[in-house]
Parts: sequence; structure tokens; C-alpha cells
Amino acid sequence: MARASSVAKQTGKTGEARKGERYREMSVAEFFARNRELAGFSNPTRALYQTVRELVENALDATDTHGILPFIQVSITYDEELEAKHGNAKKWFRVTVEDNGIGVPPTVIANAFGRVLFSSKYVIRQTRGMYGLGVKAAVLYGQMTAGKPVEVYSSIGNSEYVYSRKLYIDTEKNEPRIVERGQWRKRSGWHGTRVTITLEGDWSRAKSRILEYIKRTAIIAPYAEIVFETPEGQVFVFPRLTNKMPPPPKEAKPHPHGIDVNQMKLLLQSTNARTLLQVLVTEFQSVGKITAEKFLKQVGIPPDIKPRDLLRKEYNDLLVRLVDSMKSYRGFRAPKSEHLSPIGEDLIKLGLKRMFEPEWVDAVTRPPRAYAGHSFIVEVGIAYGGALEPVQEPLLLRYANKIPLLYEEREDVAYKVVSNINWKIYRVEFPAPIAVLVHIASTKIPYKGVGKESISDVPEIESEIRTAVQEVARRLRLFLGRKAREAEARRKIITIAKYIPEIARGLAMLAKPPEKWSPPSEDEERRLMEALIKLVSRNIEIPEIPGVDHEDPEKVVRSVIENIHLE
Amino acid sequence: MARASSVAKQTGKTGEARKGERYREMSVAEFFARNRELAGFSNPTRALYQTVRELVENALDATDTHGILPFIQVSITYDEELEAKHGNAKKWFRVTVEDNGIGVPPTVIANAFGRVLFSSKYVIRQTRGMYGLGVKAAVLYGQMTAGKPVEVYSSIGNSEYVYSRKLYIDTEKNEPRIVERGQWRKRSGWHGTRVTITLEGDWSRAKSRILEYIKRTAIIAPYAEIVFETPEGQVFVFPRLTNKMPPPPKEAKPHPHGIDVNQMKLLLQSTNARTLLQVLVTEFQSVGKITAEKFLKQVGIPPDIKPRDLLRKEYNDLLVRLVDSMKSYRGFRAPKSEHLSPIGEDLIKLGLKRMFEPEWVDAVTRPPRAYAGHSFIVEVGIAYGGALEPVQEPLLLRYANKIPLLYEEREDVAYKVVSNINWKIYRVEFPAPIAVLVHIASTKIPYKGVGKESISDVPEIESEIRTAVQEVARRLRLFLGRKAREAEARRKIITIAKYIPEIARGLAMLAKPPEKWSPPSEDEERRLMEALIKLVSRNIEIPEIPGVDHEDPEKVVRSVIENIHLE
Repeated sequence: MARASSVAKQTGKTGEARKGERYREMSVAEFFARNRELAGFSNPTRALYQTVRELVENALDATDTHGILPFIQVSITYDEELEAKHGNAKKWFRVTVEDNGIGVPPTVIANAFGRVLFSSKYVIRQTRGMYGLGVKAAVLYGQMTAGKPVEVYSSIGNSEYVYSRKLYIDTEKNEPRIVERGQWRKRSGWHGTRVTITLEGDWSRAKSRILEYIKRTAIIAPYAEIVFETPEGQVFVFPRLTNKMPPPPKEAKPHPHGIDVNQMKLLLQSTNARTLLQVLVTEFQSVGKITAEKFLKQVGIPPDIKPRDLLRKEYNDLLVRLVDSMKSYRGFRAPKSEHLSPIGEDLIKLGLKRMFEPEWVDAVTRPPRAYAGHSFIVEVGIAYGGALEPVQEPLLLRYANKIPLLYEEREDVAYKVVSNINWKIYRVEFPAPIAVLVHIASTKIPYKGVGKESISDVPEIESEIRTAVQEVARRLRLFLGRKAREAEARRKIITIAKYIPEIARGLAMLAKPPEKWSPPSEDEERRLMEALIKLVSRNIEIPEIPGVDHEDPEKVVRSVIENIHLE
Repeated sequence: MARASSVAKQTGKTGEARKGERYREMSVAEFFARNRELAGFSNPTRALYQTVRELVENALDATDTHGILPFIQVSITYDEELEAKHGNAKKWFRVTVEDNGIGVPPTVIANAFGRVLFSSKYVIRQTRGMYGLGVKAAVLYGQMTAGKPVEVYSSIGNSEYVYSRKLYIDTEKNEPRIVERGQWRKRSGWHGTRVTITLEGDWSRAKSRILEYIKRTAIIAPYAEIVFETPEGQVFVFPRLTNKMPPPPKEAKPHPHGIDVNQMKLLLQSTNARTLLQVLVTEFQSVGKITAEKFLKQVGIPPDIKPRDLLRKEYNDLLVRLVDSMKSYRGFRAPKSEHLSPIGEDLIKLGLKRMFEPEWVDAVTRPPRAYAGHSFIVEVGIAYGGALEPVQEPLLLRYANKIPLLYEEREDVAYKVVSNINWKIYRVEFPAPIAVLVHIASTKIPYKGVGKESISDVPEIESEIRTAVQEVARRLRLFLGRKAREAEARRKIITIAKYIPEIARGLAMLAKPPEKWSPPSEDEERRLMEALIKLVSRNIEIPEIPGVDHEDPEKVVRSVIENIHLE
């Protein structure tokens, strides 16, 4: 193949085997261009959805992660130029997302959008982006299908300028190829980023998913204002519901349980610490000096060994033993959670209320836990009734680091847990109008694929989800129990109350001696009825249900009497 | 973080944003080291399984893809050195796989095992490997957990030497770091490769999956001899059942339906063709000169335009239009399938017979089809009865390019099809003892992840699987129909035959005048019984079932008479 040999000439890294085996290196950009389905770009429908997702997630990371209340504008328009040229059906789209975030410095724009695996997300902090891949995969898909460059406008807060770049990704070299650059003095105080990607898509099929995605994003980020304009010119506005925003996550050092030999080597190469003891104390979280000393003594490694020495070949076994012991030593404190940013129970409830106007809603944010040295927090909300349709299994809303996950539900750990709960225990009888929201916040979400659609069943995470769902479900059980008793009480009230007018009339007559029996006056009748209503109301209790307005029994009795006509 | 800045110094590709956003580049090796779950290395159980898989698949690619009858030796042993050092439970393993394949040239060994995205699989041909990633992911996992280098011994057929390398992957640079090299003169004619990876694993949990994987590999490659030695010293031998091997797949040129703008640009850069017309005819498959001329005329692009000119910026729109038209033009011939290597109906049936000794088995290899310019062939086998346990839904055996797929079944397109078939139509009533094997052979398997466990639901593939399953299921229906009629016939035989002795005795008496009635002699009785057996047998038909030995009705009648004692 001509291509392989041309690459071969450039890199000099090929070899020829018997029977014509040809080896060559592939750049990571070419790899993801060729295997675009791995990043979620498997067809025009999915690609349009994925492009919106990646841009919106970057926009949110540039705002709320830095304490800025997000204002995100998303628009999908037909690319009329391409339509006109190709005389083709409506399949060319321009996806534009603008944010009011921290902006990308002008020196970085080209690499941030034109070099795969170049990112600011490679630190230990909870962000939506993780891989340094998503937007570049969208840029690649765009240039492969529509042949147009990505367009970026950005300004950082303290800059006087807005900078623009139009660029392609050179897939052979994995580097940006800038085709146009611009620079303007700012007229307003705007800072943020505006990105446009042109691509082949299928709007008619992607529409419902994209709307669902934006709706669910708004649920979980009610402090964000999101405006979405469709190709038909429809505009959906999700207004900001609150100015209360979770505190932005902080960056963290690695936890000793989450380290591997490879990372340890990189760390030993770059540390300023002079001894192994210092490395443990300064380069890791949750390790105090006393703990570190105790730990090294227990595993029998001298604390004053120099970091660089540990990298020498003869110390390799020692290094492996060190890392192995670090991973399993129980004496370290648990990972910190200050670099995590859960949504919080209030915001989850607010979001669920907005979406479903449910009869009942509750949520729980679990305390931080860790798996393999990565801390994580599980949050669960349950909504019941209201605008929810009765369904055969709970409507599941999955989120990871505030990203809604819509595809591959059945492979997800949250589905595994929720579908295995015995809901009868919680008085939920299907079909039931119930939705379960599960959010996992972590410095490292164990996604099953780079498309970020489903989460692996890491035992620690699975168990936390189960505990959280059970906790909220127990409160739901109380509600449903009281609701059942309320229904029972109402039935009783109705049974009694509907005879009250009759009884009142009878009593009014009986109050007089038989010779004076005559139809009671309206006044008499009303007085007796009032007395009876008070009597009955005092003796009937309607259970209080938290989160639901408590009804006055007297009011219930009156409404029954007004509405029930005895035949 | 110290590490980020040290990388920054080296690459010079970082920038500092307000509020401390730090950008950096990550090598693809570091990417897959950090996100190892993407390649299937999510925990010690899965990692051990995945390591065996990747090595076995490479071994098979080095043999049957090149027309060599495979002899593969797999062994998993405890690493006693690490055990002794760490005083830890049995969790350190050496996985060794040796093949008799074409070998890796000595100049290439280091890159082939120590550089991610360096491979001989980046051509259009059906191979098990696709990404140039799997074995390197295993090497990375090994060095990260056990800290030991991968050990490779290899010799190509016409070489007088065996070469060895021990190496680590330098994850920061994505390049091999050789720590030991050797060279020996060959004593035998051996050629092939032997690879050992040392890693942390969980044998007790991985055992059943690994055995299942090797068993299923043997089913689909009955021309291979596979020997597997477990850590406990158990040896499983899967002998070669046949010397008949499918013809090895050939390398192919791209099909015009499978091209994108990006690939087209690379191709235009490297082609020796002088005009666009020549490019279409020489660099693509299934495009003749007349078709190419017709196509270019229809889309209005001059056939004599120079390939390099098309790369100029002002022609970009033209190029996009060209590629777009190529993808949708219906006049090209379908992709060739000579670079595909299906298993064939005979080998599928042989494999299923070996595994289940079923009562009935059949298979179909469908004609080649294409999706997005990639050709593919679907094969389906169904086994019924025998050693199969009755189950609630068909036992599904999934294969892709002869790789058994064991995880993520419910996300796979084959599961989607098989679970949506209305099996009642085919007389299959669950629980039923039924297994369905689905094999997809393609130059590009659309896996959902680099761990290669499930396949996306590409509409063309989905529809082919459905057609194939229905085709074999219809034959199963015939079998089950005949089987039902056979059961019916047997019931009849039993009903009639069990009275034969009684009737014979009665007839023997009736044949004489009443005054001579006396118990018939044994001889008389036997003769009459014989006559009756012949009479009954002639009138009863047991349906013939293809693939099942046809029973002689007379034999059935006799066995009934012998075994049934009237009370």
C-alpha cells in the first residue's frame, strides 16, 4: 500500500517480514479518525449528538468548574453553503456552542482543538472531560465528512483581545494545521469560548436525544442558563433556577492506593523531595509524616533512600514492592473529597421537580468513598407521581460528573443496581410512576469506553449506589405507606361524611318532641351540620406526609359534603 | 503538579490560563496506561483473561492468516520470584504464549511490543487484531502491576537465528526501552514467537472465562492445536481435528464507499497515479475504467485533474464533493470478499458437534455484503439437543474475525437479533436445548470499544445476522417438525405394538374351529406374531430427519414388544 510506505519513509520505523508483513506506526489522531465509533461517532445521528455533547461539556467545564455561573448557547443550523454545493438533502450542519467561561489562551487554542491527547484535564480533579479526546474526535469527524475546519473564538478574562483560529487536524502528524487566524480588541467584557464544527449529521433522528440531553443537563445544573436553537429556528430556553452553585472542585495529589509502578516512576523523576519519606508526605494526599514512617518501617524500606536511586535498575524489585505495599496498606487516611463537586440534595430535588412536577421527591448525597485510590461520591434522587407516567421499571436518569448518560443503559452499573432492587419492599408496585436519578462524581469515572456512555461495575461504586437507592427508597416507602393510609382515611371520611346532611336533618327533627315534629328550618339544619362536621373532623386523622401539603380534615369533610349528592 | 510541568518543559506545548488551567500533551501509551479499563484491563480477573486473549489472537494471526496450521501453547504459571518477595497470596502470574507462526523480524520486535499504535494490522485484510493496541495494553498492565518487562523470543522462517528482547514501554515517550537482548543460532527449524508477560491477576475468578475462551477458540479453529497449562499444572489439549483450513485472507484496496475526505487526502499524497481517473481505477477496488469515467462525468469533475492539485486549498470543496459522491454512487461493484476468511459451514458444524454432541446441527455462510465500503460475511450455526442444557433463551456463541466474544453480550448486535427472533415460529419452545453461533468476518469489525467485546448495531450487519439465523432456524423447524411426528409415530407404535402378543395369541386360537380351541403352540404364536409385526411395521412411517440415523420401524416395534410387559 502506497500509504504505508510513505509513512515508513518519514518515520523510519517499519520493517519487512517474510510474506510481506508490513509494520507501521499510526498517530493517535489517525487511530481515532479510523475508529471513530470508539469515541461515539458511529453514524450521522450519533455523531451529531456526540458533537453537541462534547462541546456542551467543555463549555460547562470552563464555567462551573471555575466558579462561573454558566450561560451556554447552543445552536444547530443547516450549512447552506454545503447544501447548495452538493444539492443534497438536509444533512450538513454547523454546531456552535458559546460559553462565558475562562477562555482558552491564544497560544493554546490550536493544540487544544487540533491535537489529540492534549488537554488541561489531566489533573486529579472532577471534570466532565477526562480523556483530552472528545472535542478532537468531533473535529476529526467534521473534517472527514464535511471537509471544513473547526472555528474557534476565545478570550480569557483579563485579556483585551478576542482571538480566532480556523484549523484542521493533521491526522498523520497529530498536530493542528491553522488555515486562518484573527485578533480583535474586545468591545465588551465578554470572556469565554465559541466553537463551531461543521459535519454530516441526521437531525431528524438525533433531535429527540439531543433535546433529552440538554434537558437532563439543565436538571442537574439548575444554576446554568442554557439556550438551544434548532435548525428549524425553534428556541428552547432553560432559565437559571438558582444562583446557588456547588463549590468548584479543587485539584488533588494522588492517593497512595491509586498509584501504580509507572506513575510512581514519573513522580520520582519529577519530585523535588530529597528522600522517599518526603516523597510520601509531600507528593501524596492523606499521608502524614508519622503514618509514612510507620508504613516504611513495616515494609522494611529505608525512609532516607533518594527518589532518583529508586529508579535504578537494581532497585526495581524494591520499587514494585513499595508500590504494591502502598496500594494495600490500610493505615492511610481515606482519599479527600474536596476535589469532588457533588450536586447536592437540594439541587437534585429542584431538578427533578422541574422535570416531573412529582407528587413526592427526595434525594441523598452519600459521604465520599474511594476505589483504587480514586475518591467518589454517589448521589441518588427519586421522584414519584406527578407528570411521571406509570412504567414497568423505574425511569433511570444516569449522570457521571454531571454529564447525563443516554446510551448503553443496560451495560451501566446503575442499571444493574436499580433493576435488581426488590421494589415491592418499598411498596412500589409496577407499573409505577417512578424515576431514579443516580449521579457519580469522581476524579476518575471508570467508563467502559471513550464515548463515555456507561460505567463499569466497580464493586465499591456498585455497593454505594445500592445503599443510596435503598436509603431514598425507604423514605419513599414511608410516603407510600402514609399515602395508603391517607387513602384509607379519605375512604372513611367519605363513608361517614356523605351521611352527615341526612343525619343532621334527622337530628334536627328528633331534637323536638314528637308532636312538634316538622321539617327543621334551614338554620337549625345548618347549625347541626356544623356541629357534626366538627365532631367527625376531630375524630379523623389524615397522616402527615413530608413534602406534601398536609390537608385539614375539616376541609376534606366539607368538600365531600359539597360534592357528594346522595341519591 | 510537578509532573505536568516537567512534561511541559520537554515538549514546550503548554500554556497557562487564568485560574491555573494547565495544558499538557499525553502520549498514547500513557493514555492507555491511565485508562486501562478501556482496553479491557479493569481489574485483576479481567486483566488475566484479556492478556491471554491478546496473546492467543496474535498467535493465531501469525499462523492461519499466513496459511500455517496453528500450534499454540498457552501457559499460566505463578511467578515464584514475586510471590517470594512480596509474601503475598497467589496473585502474580506469568502468561506465556508460543506459536509456530511467521515470527517478528528482529528489527521490529521492540516496536511491535513496545510502541502503542505500531502494527502490521493497518491494512485492509481480515485479522483478529485491528488496533495495534491489545498486546501493548497487556505489556503496560504487566509493567504497572508487576514491574517486570515483557519477554519476547522470535524467529522468522528463513532466519538462522532466534532473537530475544526484554523490554518496558516508556509511557512518557511511547517507545520501547530494551533491558536485555539475545541471539542464538537455531537448532531446529522452529519459527514463530514466544511471549511472556508477568502481571497481577486473579486466577480463581478468571479460570472459567479463560477456559471458555480457549474452548470456543478451538471450536471455531478446529484446524489448530491448542495446549493450555494452568497454574495448578493441569494440561488441556485441544487436538487438531482437521487439516482443512480456510484460505488465508488477502490484502485489499479501499472500496470507494468506505473512503472519507481524510483518507482520500492521504491517498492523493502518496499515489503514483497521474490523473484522478487513474487514482480511481488503480487505488480502489471494484472500480473499472468505464465506471470511473461514467462516475466522474455524472458528478461533473474533470477526469484528468492531477491528484496533487486536488489537495490545494481552492479545490477543497471539490474534494469534499468528490468523496461525498463516491460514498453514495450506486454504480460501483460491491466490495470484494477475497480478503475475508469465513470459517465455512463444515467447520462450524464440526466445532459445534465437538462442543455439544448435539442431536441436530446446521450452519450457513451468507454471501459477502458491505457496510460503508467494508465488506463482511455473516455465518450462523445452530445446535439442538445432545449435551445442551434446556435454557430460557438460546445460548449465544459470538465470534468476530474468529475471536470468541464473552463479555458485554447484551450490548451486542447478535444478542439484539437472536433475542428478538420469535422462536415459536420455528417450533422452539423454551426452555429448549439450543445454541446459536454467530460469526462476523470483516476487514473492519465495528467494535464498541478497544477491548473488542461487543459489536455495534450497524443496520447492514444486523439485517444479515437476522437473515442467516432465520435461514438455519427454518431447517431446525423441519427437524423439530419431523421429530414431533416421529414422537407421534412412536406413540402409535407403542399403542399398537404392546397388544401384538395378546392379539397373536388370540388369533392363533381363532384360526382353529371352536372345538379345537386350545392354547396355541409357541411356534404358532411366534409365526403369527411375526406376521403381525411385519403388518404393523409396513403401515407405520417414522419420518426421516436429515443428520439423524433413520430408524427401521420394524426394529422399533420389536424393541417395544420386548420391553413392554402388559400387566
